[in-house]
Amino acid sequence: MPIIRVEMFKGRTREQKRELARELTEAFVRACGGKPEAVTVVLSDVDKQDWAVAGALMADKYPD
Amino acid sequence: MPIIRVEMFKGRTREQKRELARELTEAFVRACGGKPEAVTVVLSDVDKQDWAVAGALMADKYPD
Amino acid sequence: MPIIRVEMFKGRTREQKRELARELTEAFVRACGGKPEAVTVVLSDVDKQDWAVAGALMADKYPD
Amino acid sequence: MPIIRVEMFKGRTREQKRELARELTEAFVRACGGKPEAVTVVLSDVDKQDWAVAGALMADKYPD
Amino acid sequence: MPIIRVEMFKGRTREQKRELARELTEAFVRACGGKPEAVTVVLSDVDKQDWAVAGALMADKYPD
Amino acid sequence: MPIIRVEMFKGRTREQKRELARELTEAFVRACGGKPEAVTVVLSDVDKQDWAVAGALMADKYPD
Repeated sequence: MPIIRVEMFKGRTREQKRELARELTEAFVRACGGKPEAVTVVLSDVDKQDWAVAGALMADKYPD
Repeated sequence: MPIIRVEMFKGRTREQKRELARELTEAFVRACGGKPEAVTVVLSDVDKQDWAVAGALMADKYPD
Repeated sequence: MPIIRVEMFKGRTREQKRELARELTEAFVRACGGKPEAVTVVLSDVDKQDWAVAGALMADKYPD
Repeated sequence: MPIIRVEMFKGRTREQKRELARELTEAFVRACGGKPEAVTVVLSDVDKQDWAVAGALMADKYPD
Repeated sequence: MPIIRVEMFKGRTREQKRELARELTEAFVRACGGKPEAVTVVLSDVDKQDWAVAGALMADKYPD
Repeated sequence: MPIIRVEMFKGRTREQKRELARELTEAFVRACGGKPEAVTVVLSDVDKQDWAVAGALMADKYPD
């Protein structure tokens, strides 16, 4: 029944998300047991103008 | 002062969201008391490529 | 597959949480359709010293 | 290592987000100590049709 | 800069949490690239009386 | 109507939380406008065994 939530920069491909969901689910089962069917993964794309470290927006620090 | 947050698949209409906000607010008040004015509801639409169960993206399991 | 999350003040009884989980699940199904089995509810108790409105801790505004 | 997350109405400019990230980071350091480099801020724009108070969608209460 | 958040039942040991944090971090890097140093993991223990599926508290469905 | 959420290490005093709530609320209003009454702050204490960077639990990296 675990829920795994990921916030990450926008721009991952469908293929990367597919891999990520599979990998995270297997990682949970390896570490904590249980069945993969019980694991939910929710991915969140975050824009670089909505993420800051040390008070500076990533959009300013790493412009496209 | 409760905050109710819902993550659900993208695609609900404005009318469904209106009903949902009203229903959840009333549900909270019936179960726990308090006033409806104190209840905040935040809805989050999640894309099928951002939601996985058992390690498989919903976008792969239920393609449009 | 919706996930409903509630942040509320600490102190609800088991019976109130039971009612709340049932009510929220039914509310979702009435408004948006789907099956109750697909609905997950996660409740979070928040201490009054961890909740503020207008910059004032609830623990200060409403001491026990 | 604190993470500060803000849910707010859609529509803030890049300049407001820049100010907000800087201000929140400084606010944390003033109140709790630590270094700005350790503070992460994540901003979330919420649509008025996804936010309700007292059971009423903000999009209905404050139409554009 | 990804943040991975896990909600799971209370009761995992320190050793399981250690494994979980390591496994999730490696899973992210394998699927999406980047460096492990950039990955933050936050774990949340959820009590069985705070988790419901199909409107029924896990504490009622699976009493200790 | 903004909601500001902070995840931080356990151990802040009531006085620090009071300052933090006040500072964050003022920071929001300075950057984005609006009234302090509309700002909600929710604080979350995270245990060092529930927080990892680079795959290592803070409880291992910085034991008490």
